[in-house]
Amino acid sequence: MPSAISFPLLLQPPATSPTLKPSALLLLQTLTTRRIAARPFSPVALPIRAAVAIEKETPENERPETFLRASDGLLSSSSSTSPLSVRARFEKMIRETQDEVCAAIEAADGGGAFKEDVWSRPGGGGGISRVLQDGAVWEKAGVNVSVVYGVMPPEAYRAAKGDAVGANSAVKAGPVPFFAAGISSVLHPKNPFAPTLHFNYRYFETDAPTDAPGAPRQWWFGGGTDLTPAYIFEEDVKHFHMVQKQACDKFDPSFYPRFKKWCDDYFYIKHRSERRGLGGIFFDDLNDYDQEMLLGFSTECSKSVIPAYIPIIERRKDTPFTEENKAWQQLRRGRYVEFNLVYDRGTTFGLKTGGRIESILVSLPLTARWEYDHKPEEGTEEWKLLDACINPKEWL
Amino acid sequence: MPSAISFPLLLQPPATSPTLKPSALLLLQTLTTRRIAARPFSPVALPIRAAVAIEKETPENERPETFLRASDGLLSSSSSTSPLSVRARFEKMIRETQDEVCAAIEAADGGGAFKEDVWSRPGGGGGISRVLQDGAVWEKAGVNVSVVYGVMPPEAYRAAKGDAVGANSAVKAGPVPFFAAGISSVLHPKNPFAPTLHFNYRYFETDAPTDAPGAPRQWWFGGGTDLTPAYIFEEDVKHFHMVQKQACDKFDPSFYPRFKKWCDDYFYIKHRSERRGLGGIFFDDLNDYDQEMLLGFSTECSKSVIPAYIPIIERRKDTPFTEENKAWQQLRRGRYVEFNLVYDRGTTFGLKTGGRIESILVSLPLTARWEYDHKPEEGTEEWKLLDACINPKEWL
Repeated sequence: MPSAISFPLLLQPPATSPTLKPSALLLLQTLTTRRIAARPFSPVALPIRAAVAIEKETPENERPETFLRASDGLLSSSSSTSPLSVRARFEKMIRETQDEVCAAIEAADGGGAFKEDVWSRPGGGGGISRVLQDGAVWEKAGVNVSVVYGVMPPEAYRAAKGDAVGANSAVKAGPVPFFAAGISSVLHPKNPFAPTLHFNYRYFETDAPTDAPGAPRQWWFGGGTDLTPAYIFEEDVKHFHMVQKQACDKFDPSFYPRFKKWCDDYFYIKHRSERRGLGGIFFDDLNDYDQEMLLGFSTECSKSVIPAYIPIIERRKDTPFTEENKAWQQLRRGRYVEFNLVYDRGTTFGLKTGGRIESILVSLPLTARWEYDHKPEEGTEEWKLLDACINPKEWL
Repeated sequence: MPSAISFPLLLQPPATSPTLKPSALLLLQTLTTRRIAARPFSPVALPIRAAVAIEKETPENERPETFLRASDGLLSSSSSTSPLSVRARFEKMIRETQDEVCAAIEAADGGGAFKEDVWSRPGGGGGISRVLQDGAVWEKAGVNVSVVYGVMPPEAYRAAKGDAVGANSAVKAGPVPFFAAGISSVLHPKNPFAPTLHFNYRYFETDAPTDAPGAPRQWWFGGGTDLTPAYIFEEDVKHFHMVQKQACDKFDPSFYPRFKKWCDDYFYIKHRSERRGLGGIFFDDLNDYDQEMLLGFSTECSKSVIPAYIPIIERRKDTPFTEENKAWQQLRRGRYVEFNLVYDRGTTFGLKTGGRIESILVSLPLTARWEYDHKPEEGTEEWKLLDACINPKEWL
């Protein structure tokens, strides 16, 4: 069951570069089980001491129909095409996706079953965590949804939305209520020829600052789906990227090339000068398109996870392998750990601010390996994978 | 062989808390193969982009008699008790310790042998890295020494030495030449009843700032030895701590209690609210005792590694174990990875500033494991270990 302890959140300092920008990514990936409280704002990102627990999550025995507050399910003020708010439709979409992905994983696994933890928060919001561990095909598969309400310090809001309520603006905003919902998943198979998959889609809204009711509401979408194999099967990687491209192309022909590059840039293990895998798509803070269009796009991407991934697993899950194949997969899992613990914005932020550790670190593989100064011999299959992680390729 | 590439260093911002203080620990653990260059100083710890290589290390075929510059081996100006400078005597001590520890490890292992990489830098300094991998007793054992010359930005110097050349001082110091030498080692055995050991001893000096020749030279000692078992054998832990205490007590009766607590505080995995192991001793930035006394103390601690550790290994290396014992050891190795990648000042600083990755990450275990929401049953041997990591005990 989820920890019954929650923690206050200290948001990051005002962004001086895009990489420090507080975003739906940070908030959602890390704060799924945590109260988000307004706190004095520090201009320097100091190590944060273990925070005092001030509000508890409640483990629940049943899934509620919605984690939204009553007022959020009402007619959307910003949309005439649907009777439900974007918040409500996004929650519905991620919960359906969770059900569908978990069902597909269980069917393909043929052995393991997901264990479910449901939790809610007194102030509203909650989540459903599902983990399948030591299955027949997957050694660890986590699929989590969460719906979180919170309050962000005005400086973080200004940093995120600079122009609208900028530092030079006459509007001196107070704490900003926000809403964040998302689905996050990492699937680590056992067979070294079957790739790891990660996907995460999220929606983020801020209300008007509490003491500046005239200021605009803001919203963003973020997310992505990426593939991390230990060995390259071109047909697999092409298939995976093709499904991503098809999802993108339904909305904007610029999306796939743009989000493919964004993905290569984001999942970069700087100290290795290599990516953790073979990419896919990634986007963040996306709000410069029609909101309905982006809701549709996020939905399309989420629905593409199963057709993009499961056929690859079916092809590779029973491939015979050697101890050397397994050791190489384990070394690549070590890289996955390095990326997640050292660079992933959600993970590092969650660790520093005292999030529920099991939810944050469910993304780590069951097992990983580090050898001193390991270098695959040039021309080998291992070398080809590493080369593609160092020099991202166009797969289509 | 070590990478032939070196990187410039961006030092940490001025300390606003002791945990941000630039120190011999940071410099030495991470910069063993890197040129330390004066750079514009940024007041905020931003993520640092991959740095441009500007100076190369040279792999060497033979160990030089000393990595010191010629002038450093001369008569010490600060000591009348020895014809050799503290720098020279410290280098001699750590190289002897490396030889002795490696010989003891190889003898106890009975199978594996250390692989050695020697390197030097054009500007002076260098190091010797030794790694034993997949031995009979140890799965990974690294013992490195390094001797590094560099230049630190004046702000970092002021932050480190506040009072002497403080921000309010009339002395406007320029870049500060420094010297750092140390030995660093992590030893991960295979048997789950045989503990991991880490030790690191280092000596640090700054010259007078280049444009303020009258300002005082500074020096510090740092280091420690700590034990990380997966299972508690009281006789082992007591023996280990007793050897540490005996080394401390030869110099000051306050050392053991003070450095034992410092160790418990430092090796703290904040997001788990637990220590990575059962501690030992740890100290940093130590300069408020006689320099000769602290050189003697560091030497005593270094010489205590073998008698503190090898008898434990001899007792435990062949203990029969189950798959469950091994899985628990692997989970604790996962914690080790979490501490080193997320908190260890040397590791995190090295990764961010572009150090030689294989030297920095040789501390990681060969293999590690993460299970979702694993909780040992109360009263079990696994639970007892975890409890001692959560609630540090007095072992003596």
